Formats: sequence, C-alpha cells, structure tokens
Amino acid sequence: MFSIGSKEIETIDYELDLKGVNNLRGLALDMIVEANSGHGGIIMSSAPIIYTLFKYHMNIDLNNLNFINRDKFIFSAGHGVPLLYGVDYFLNLLELNDLKSLRKIDGLPGHPEIGTPLVDFTSGALGQGVGTSVGYAIGERYLNKKSNNLINYYTYVLCGDGELEEGITYEALSLAGTLNLNKLIVLVDLNEVTLDNDLNVTSKEDIIKRFESINFNVIEANDSVKSINESINDAKKSDKPSVILVKTKIGLYSKYEGTNKAHGMVPDQEDLLKIKEKLGLFESSFTVNNEVIENFKNTLVERSNEIIKEFNEKYNSLEDKTFIDKIINKENTYSLKNIDIEYNNESLRDLSGIILNKIANDFDLLIGGSADLSSSCKTKLDNYSTFLENDYSGRNIYFGIREHASAAIINGLALSGLRPFTSTFLVFSDYMRTSIRESAIMNLPCLYIFTHDSITVGEDGPLHQPIEQLPSLELIPNLKIYRPYDLNELIGCYIDIFNNNKPACLILPRNNNKISANTKSNEIEKGIYEVIENETDDYINLISNGEELGIVLELSKNLKEIGIDNKVFSIPVKKNIEDNIDLLLNNKKTIAITFAHPSYFYDITKNVIGIDSFGKSASKEELLDYYSFTSEKLTNQILELLKK
Amino acid sequence: MFSIGSKEIETIDYELDLKGVNNLRGLALDMIVEANSGHGGIIMSSAPIIYTLFKYHMNIDLNNLNFINRDKFIFSAGHGVPLLYGVDYFLNLLELNDLKSLRKIDGLPGHPEIGTPLVDFTSGALGQGVGTSVGYAIGERYLNKKSNNLINYYTYVLCGDGELEEGITYEALSLAGTLNLNKLIVLVDLNEVTLDNDLNVTSKEDIIKRFESINFNVIEANDSVKSINESINDAKKSDKPSVILVKTKIGLYSKYEGTNKAHGMVPDQEDLLKIKEKLGLFESSFTVNNEVIENFKNTLVERSNEIIKEFNEKYNSLEDKTFIDKIINKENTYSLKNIDIEYNNESLRDLSGIILNKIANDFDLLIGGSADLSSSCKTKLDNYSTFLENDYSGRNIYFGIREHASAAIINGLALSGLRPFTSTFLVFSDYMRTSIRESAIMNLPCLYIFTHDSITVGEDGPLHQPIEQLPSLELIPNLKIYRPYDLNELIGCYIDIFNNNKPACLILPRNNNKISANTKSNEIEKGIYEVIENETDDYINLISNGEELGIVLELSKNLKEIGIDNKVFSIPVKKNIEDNIDLLLNNKKTIAITFAHPSYFYDITKNVIGIDSFGKSASKEELLDYYSFTSEKLTNQILELLKK
Repeated sequence: MFSIGSKEIETIDYELDLKGVNNLRGLALDMIVEANSGHGGIIMSSAPIIYTLFKYHMNIDLNNLNFINRDKFIFSAGHGVPLLYGVDYFLNLLELNDLKSLRKIDGLPGHPEIGTPLVDFTSGALGQGVGTSVGYAIGERYLNKKSNNLINYYTYVLCGDGELEEGITYEALSLAGTLNLNKLIVLVDLNEVTLDNDLNVTSKEDIIKRFESINFNVIEANDSVKSINESINDAKKSDKPSVILVKTKIGLYSKYEGTNKAHGMVPDQEDLLKIKEKLGLFESSFTVNNEVIENFKNTLVERSNEIIKEFNEKYNSLEDKTFIDKIINKENTYSLKNIDIEYNNESLRDLSGIILNKIANDFDLLIGGSADLSSSCKTKLDNYSTFLENDYSGRNIYFGIREHASAAIINGLALSGLRPFTSTFLVFSDYMRTSIRESAIMNLPCLYIFTHDSITVGEDGPLHQPIEQLPSLELIPNLKIYRPYDLNELIGCYIDIFNNNKPACLILPRNNNKISANTKSNEIEKGIYEVIENETDDYINLISNGEELGIVLELSKNLKEIGIDNKVFSIPVKKNIEDNIDLLLNNKKTIAITFAHPSYFYDITKNVIGIDSFGKSASKEELLDYYSFTSEKLTNQILELLKK
Repeated sequence: MFSIGSKEIETIDYELDLKGVNNLRGLALDMIVEANSGHGGIIMSSAPIIYTLFKYHMNIDLNNLNFINRDKFIFSAGHGVPLLYGVDYFLNLLELNDLKSLRKIDGLPGHPEIGTPLVDFTSGALGQGVGTSVGYAIGERYLNKKSNNLINYYTYVLCGDGELEEGITYEALSLAGTLNLNKLIVLVDLNEVTLDNDLNVTSKEDIIKRFESINFNVIEANDSVKSINESINDAKKSDKPSVILVKTKIGLYSKYEGTNKAHGMVPDQEDLLKIKEKLGLFESSFTVNNEVIENFKNTLVERSNEIIKEFNEKYNSLEDKTFIDKIINKENTYSLKNIDIEYNNESLRDLSGIILNKIANDFDLLIGGSADLSSSCKTKLDNYSTFLENDYSGRNIYFGIREHASAAIINGLALSGLRPFTSTFLVFSDYMRTSIRESAIMNLPCLYIFTHDSITVGEDGPLHQPIEQLPSLELIPNLKIYRPYDLNELIGCYIDIFNNNKPACLILPRNNNKISANTKSNEIEKGIYEVIENETDDYINLISNGEELGIVLELSKNLKEIGIDNKVFSIPVKKNIEDNIDLLLNNKKTIAITFAHPSYFYDITKNVIGIDSFGKSASKEELLDYYSFTSEKLTNQILELLKK
C-alpha cells in the first residue's frame, strides 16, 4: 500500500516507470543530438528525479497552468531542461516539433525561460534557482495564511551537488531552515562530479551534517523511481524543509559515465546507440512508448483533479474573494493616492519609509525587508509583524546579512504574485547583481531600495561609498533606476513604480535634502524635466539627479549671478527618457553633475563632473570639498568647461 | 605552566590583562567619541580577542612590518578597527594624535585600509575578509612549500557571527576545510546580535555542526583572555583549520548592552562615564596604563624576536635565495619574452591558455585556477599539479563553483606576494563584483580571465550571454579591462599585464578569431591604435575591440567598396587611452561597434551600435543576424547614422 497525494493505491508499476524514465532519457538525448548542443550528463542522472516528481507528486491543472495551487518546480540546474520539455511532451503541452527546435532561434531555449510550459524560473546561472525557490516557499506560506489555507502548494527545486558550492544556496537555505519552510523540498542530483573535476577535489563537505546544521530534514535516496517516490512522500510528512540526496551517475551508460567529461556531452551516433541499447530503446529517435505516456499523464491528471476539485469547492464557498482573486488575476499594481505627508525636514529615506508604510497599509501584496539594514534603509513596515516560523502572516522579512539571497528570494515572491522589496546600502548591490539581473530578465515587479548612495555616506569610507554602482545598475536592461531629489520627486517615483509592475531600484541618499518649490511629482514618467527655467537665449543646461541636484540648484543661482545663464534639469528616471531630450536640451552646452562615475551621463553629454576614483573616509563636508563639489569649486570647473 | 609560542612560561598575569583589555576598550571608545562616529558595540565585545591575539600570539617585527613571517590578521568585521589602532598605539606604531584623527580627512580611516600599520586587508564589506583570509592561508602554504618551510606564519581572521550569514564566508571556508588549511584560525565574535535584530531571527543555525560539516576544528571560548589564549593554543595544535567561537556581549556595560542598538552606538558622555566606571577607568580620555602597554609590547617583542632570529638563521644559511628574495622584495612583475607561438586557428582562449602556461613555466609566482570552468576558460597550468591537502606545491587551484570566493581568495594570494588569477565566464563576473572591487581598491595584481564574452556564446542563452558586464567592469576605478581581438593583441595584453602589477581583467570570446595582418602587440600600452588606414580626407572612424573587430574589419572593406572611406581603430585597453584619442579620431564622425551595451563607448562617441536588451538562445550565426551584426545590416545602420 502506497500513499500518493491524498490517494492510497495498491501498487505502482515500477517496471513501467523504469521504461518511462528511460524513454524520457532517450527523448531528451534526441533533443540535444538534434540541436548538436546541450548537456547530456544531467539528462542521464536527473531523469528519474524529474519523472518521479511530475508523475507522482506535482499537482497541475493541464487546462490552466496558472492554477494557483499548481505545485511549483524550479529547475535550478537549468542545463537539464530537455528533461522538463520531455515532461511537457508527455503531458501534451509541447509537440515533437517544439522539441526539435531546441536551442534554435525562436525555438525552445537552451536553459529554462519563464513562458515555456511548466517553467517556473529562468535559470542557467547556478545557485539562483535554489535562492528563488526559498522565495516561492515564503510566498506560499504568506498566501496560505492570508487565504485561510486555501492557497496551498509545494515548491520543489532540483539542483546538482556541485551547485551547492554557490554561496547563495547556503544563504537562502539557511534562511529556509530558520523559517522552517516545510513545503520546500530540495532535490539534489548527487552525482559527485562538477564540470572541472570530481566533487571531492573542491568539497569534502559532510552534506548531511551541512543540512542538519541549518534545520533541514535530510533524506537519502538512490536513483530508482521507488526510492525517489518514497523519499518525496517522507519529505511531505516532515515539519521541516527537506533535502533529498539522490545518489546518481552523471552521463550514465555513456563513455563518459561518472566523469566530469559527461557534463557537456552531446553523444556521437556510436555512443548514442550504445546508450539507447542499455536503456532498452530500439525505436527511431523522438519516439516514446505510448503506455508510458498515457500512464504518466493519467496518474498526474487523476491526482491533480482531486486537488483542483477541492480548491474549487473551497473557493466557491468563500464569501470574500477579494484577496484570492487579486492573486489569481495577478493584480499586482497599486494606484498610490492621497499622499499627504507633513514634511519636517526628514531625510529622503525616512520619507520613503513613511510612503512605503502608507502603501503597505492599503496594499496587502506588499511584503519585504532588508539584508540586515531595515533600520538604516527605513524599510520596516511598522504596523505588521515579522515573518517568522510561528507567524507566516508577517510582512517584514529579515533576510539576515544575505544580500544576494534577499534578491533571489524577492524574485520568488514576485513570481508568487506578490509585490516584494528588499533593501541595503547601494554599494552592496554588487553582492546581488546576478539576482537583480534575474529580476530584469524575467521583468518581475521587484523593488530594490538602495540607500546611502554616494560618497556623502561619509566616515565609513570607500567600501561603503558607491561610485560605479549607479551607472552599473543603469546598464541592466529592463531595470528602471529611480533617483529622486526630494519628497515631490519621491512621491512621483513611488507612483510610477507601483502603477507599473516592472523591476525597479529606488536609490536614496543617507542625508537630508531640502524640499524644492520647483520639483514635481507628475514629471517622473517623462524621466527628465526642467526645474529651473531661463529667460534668455544664451544659456547652458545643467543636468543632475538625486542629492546632487541640491548642489546644482545652488550652483545655478551662483552662475546666474556671475552672468552664466542656465537651465536646470532633473533626471529622476533615466530609462523613462524618450525622444523629448533633444528638444529639452535645445542644442545648448550641457553639463552634468553627479557623485557617481561620470559614465552615468555620457549618453547625454560628454561634459560630466563626476567621480572616477574610490571614496575616502571623512565627513560629508570634508568629502564634498575634497572631491570639488562645493559651489565655488564647481563654478571654476564649469568656467573651465565653457572655455573648451 | 602555559606554552606561548615556542616558549613555556610559568604564569600569565590575567589580572593585568583584564586591565589591558579594558584600557583598550576605553581607548577605542575615546576614538569614536572624538570622531563622533563609529561602532561602539564591537569595541566592547571584540577587545579581549584582539588584545589576546596580538599580545600572546601574533609574531611581528616592529622594526620591519614587512617581515615575511609576520603573522597575518584580517579584521573582517572591519568596523571594529579602532581596536586595531589601539594595538598600534600600544606598540608605538601610531601616536595619540593619529588616534584622534579617526574618520577625519587624511586621518585614520573608519574601516581598515592597507597602508595603515598592521592592516592586512581593506575591509568594510562583510564577508570579504573571511574570503581573503583563505587566500592568505593558501598563499602561506604554497610559499611554505616552495621555501622548504622557511616561510611560515599563521593567518587569523576576526568576524562576527552575523557576518557568517554572508554566502562568501561559506564558500571560502568550505574550500579551506577541503584543503585542510590548518594555519588558518577563524575567530568569531559570537555576540548573537546583528544590526537589525537578534541573530536567531535570521539564523537558527547550529554553528558547531556547520563548521564540523566543512572539516573545521571547532573550539568554544568565553571572552576572558585566559579562555581565548588557551583556545588559540589549541587551534595551533590542530591539523585542521580552526574556528574559535568566542561568546561575547555586544556593547558590554553600555545602555544598549546585548542589543542590536549597540552596533552603531557612539556613547554619549553619560553612558561613556558609566561604561568607563565599570571598566575601572578613571583617568582622562586617551590615557592608557603604562604597565599595560609595557607588558603588552614586551611580551609581543620577546616572543617575536625568537621567530625573527630563527628566520634569519635559516635565511642566512640558505644557498639559493632567489625565490625567497623575490617574495621579500615583492618582485611580482614579469617580463614576457620569446613569445613564439605557432598559430593553428585556435580560439583566443586556447591561445591565452598557451601563453599563460608559458608564463607559468618561467614565473613561479603565478598561481590560480577557475570557478569550475578551467577547461572552458583554458586556465589549467598543464605542467603543474593541483593545490590539494597533500600537495601544497600545486599551482592549479580548483575553487569549485564559488566565483565570489575565488575572487576574494586571489586577493589574499596577491597580498601574500603572488601573482594569482581566477577564471569563469564573463557573465558570472557579476557574482564576484564586491571582491573584484576589493582588488581594485587595494590595487592588487589580480588577473581575472573572463571568457565567453558576448551573445556569441550562442545556444546557452541569455543567462550565459553578457550584455552589461563589459561596461560594468570598465566602470570600476583602477581596474584595467583588456579585450584583445587576436593573437597579436593578446600577446601585447599579457605583456602589459605582467609588466605591471595592477588589477586586470582579460576578456575573451568563446569562438575563434582569425589573426589579422594589421593588429599589433606593441600598441597595447596606448590603449587605442589604428588598424585600417585611410588615404583620403573625407572618412569616418570605426572603433571596436574584441571579437567584434573581426566583423568591423570586414565591414570596413564593404563600406570602402560603396564609397564610404573609413579608418578602423582597435581599443584593446580603454583605461590605457590617454590624450591621444582626439588626435587619432581627428574630429571625424566616429561609429563604435560592440556586442556589449552601447554605454561601453559613449565616453568616446554617441554613435554606438551595441545591444541594450538581453540575449537569446540560438546559434552564434542566428544571433548575429537577429541582433543585426551581419555586414549587410551593419552597413545599413551606418548609412542611417551618416544621414543624421
């Protein structure tokens, strides 16, 4: 007697399943041979894991892949994706022609990309999927609590044992253990080989102890469907997050079996035939046994139907469907209204905190936290509790000193349908680059709040003072960088961010900025607008944003006094600038002023006063003088530039 | 009877030591009060660790801080640096006036910066010091082996328990355990508090099990000098790397004792007096007990003198001092000569591997490896073994899938006097940003070899295809980015890299580039040079570098055929460009062509044909067509640009 899902069944035909696993292997091999490019090693080792997981555990509504309680699967070792495409084929979600388009332009991508059936994460950079799976698992627990247990599903993630060397996996899983996310199940393809070598050359870790030390339920399995199936059943019973260590052979049956050469192998015809013989496959390529497919699909559908039915009954009996419908319909934007803030000379980050709290009070999809700097970044949601093992309704997530994981986790929260944020100092955005890039590639509504955004951090010195980070983030496609000067612009930024559902960085200084009479909230969409006008025909443009704009406003006055007429433009969102910029700048000499690396403005003008060296430990005032950002020194630099 | 260093002494006056620790605390508090900025919490908790380590263990030649066998100390929790300055004062390496200059312009920096006495690492970004300490420890073992045990010292690193949440600490220490680096001793200030909260909100880790799982010798201590001293003695006896968990109280005796508010506290006068009273300090500020200082210094000097004497005896009896003198005199450059390579249409990364091997054969300071991609990046040193527990003479380091740690580790290797390198795909440089920034801030001769440098990676898709990474690295001050087109330029790049001792990235494509008759090795120093000349007066400039230059060379010919005269410039090293560029470009219309984000060339021209969106999974040829980099499509784009 076995229990599968909620159903007890008499027997499982494990003989048919072995055939099924081997059919899946053969099909995936055919794909990479057809593409003449791919990763054969993991196809052979991970096939039984994928097969078992989908056939016996994943609940999926094949008529509605957006079914909210569909179990989630993150293929962190994304190079094994042909196996997932094979499953898609088994389930009639892809056709043979699709499989044959692998790695070709507009065909199936070489690594998983969201948009493809059953792909829950765009992977390919190792460690990211593991990080994001923890975000999914946090999201599910929050949604579960908010929906009175109506939303309820498992998050599975598959990674290689080598991948666990990535620091981000440790960061994220340590938090998962701390939060006791017991609906997270990590499947490890334990093949003991990495691309370059045997695993033990680079890791002599006791992997069982490692996972025990971070509060995981550890299960060991072999690569049979029976063992994997039973292990997943055990994992589901645990009150802790689970890791299943599945002992496998990379490149099984190939001439590279068990060696690092198997990683990127595309078998030649001779090897392919030999492998297929050992797999018991004698049909022509791209052929799968019908019984296998039918049995696979029926098992999945029958089990899933129960879950779907159960969900529908509960859903239909719900009186208040507001929250659940928001999630189902992916209504993840929010119209910020009635912003009425009394300004008492607070710093912009304090004001940001006030607005964030106002949004949180009205918009229950907002959830987030900080990599241990919520008190500095002002990102605590005051009216809400902390997301903890014993309070999954909490909306403040303490990520720990884990910048990288915090970013990967908010990707998972966004993919769960929420509007997440994380925060740290701007300079530490460097720790998160790969995960921020993931937000951008997937176009997820993740909000990064980065404060302490320049040398004016002051005394903490060069390692706390960003120079290249602002232009460096600006380079990431899809990612919008918001850099407001004062409260007016800040409000506009928040409106623009939450009216849309795109990845965004909100970048704020440490210090207080005065509020200007000329700044506006409603110009943010345009990216650039005029802050100081000019009446004469002969003038220069001064452009800037953020804290520096305050200096430029003063400078503008000084320059006018000495007869240099000028207009001042604020650029709160560079990526919002469209064709209007040439019209605005009107072919006048344009000088940009920034605390960032001058490259930040080179797309607009070559005349940039910026900082192209590292910072220094001193007070803000000393540093502004040292880096020549006093009004007098700036005036002199501009006079020099005007001579050219 | 206690054994301290090699000397057995009868008793230690632990009462005097407690006074010493408290004097150190008081002095460090005075510093941050004088600066009105700093971190009081760690001053109170880490003082006994620093005090004990330096008084009873660190071997230092006070007359020559460059003494090769000086023990190394990395203050990873760098915000505690006033304690180290206090030790400097105890040892007469700094004066009271220096201490009073803390956090002021040109005074003592707010976080450790190399160049200050006894600072072995520029820290302040959490986790980096732990990562780099492993590099120091690898360096020491390599030098020890190469010098027949003459070079021999300990590497100590001090971090907070919260800092251990950073993934890089896990990556690096897991490798340290694998390599069994038993001269590495990690001191953990176990105060169970982070900036934002109690540690257990973000980590319920079993820290003992964690370190056991990565092959560390785990020692628990309290915050008495006796306990810490005995623990370090125990650690030195272990044949494994050790971690000493010192249970402390953050902000001891202050009103914030034991809470997260202690992290950034600068005590007010009232609290300062209360703390000082509990410390038994009644003298005016910046006053240290003479007996404490004398005893501290004498103990250190007496012990160190033995080590110095022993070293000198061994050194003087050495017949061949070549290697050791190179290390002592920091001769870490290398003149690349007799480059004679038969070109057989290899890819540039293959050719890079050939040159790297040639250098290795002649220059035994070269050591390095890859984050699991040595076979793809071609960075294996074929004639040398792998650096492993049982072979510390190995010069191939397998870092594992730990990009970030690999960068932090080569910082440590460079600080040890070696010429290290690491390698991975360019897109994964994002994982290493903070550590690369450290190389740049410290101006260390670290070589980063990044291959697979554009969309022409092909089928593996967007997460393997760098777009923004090239300009993003270029933004980092001090860091030179080398992007050669062919073998000629590659040789020039290697010459420039090894003739200097600066941080460098060598960026190479996946594919084969033909060798050009016009490229040169001896123009690299200038950064830019003319590859295709032009005879007429009316012409345009085409600029490019790397793989794209091949396309531009073809394009140049096509354009000339349709009557558009042009010059072609190669820019192998943008940071080497000086004033010559305006002269070279001669005010002609200049069009840049790059596979990177167009920002890469905006400092030179606004007319850039680049890629500002993410990549795609397809073959190289399909992608070049898709992104309009065929000669025909480029010609059309240029015709458009010329109309403007």
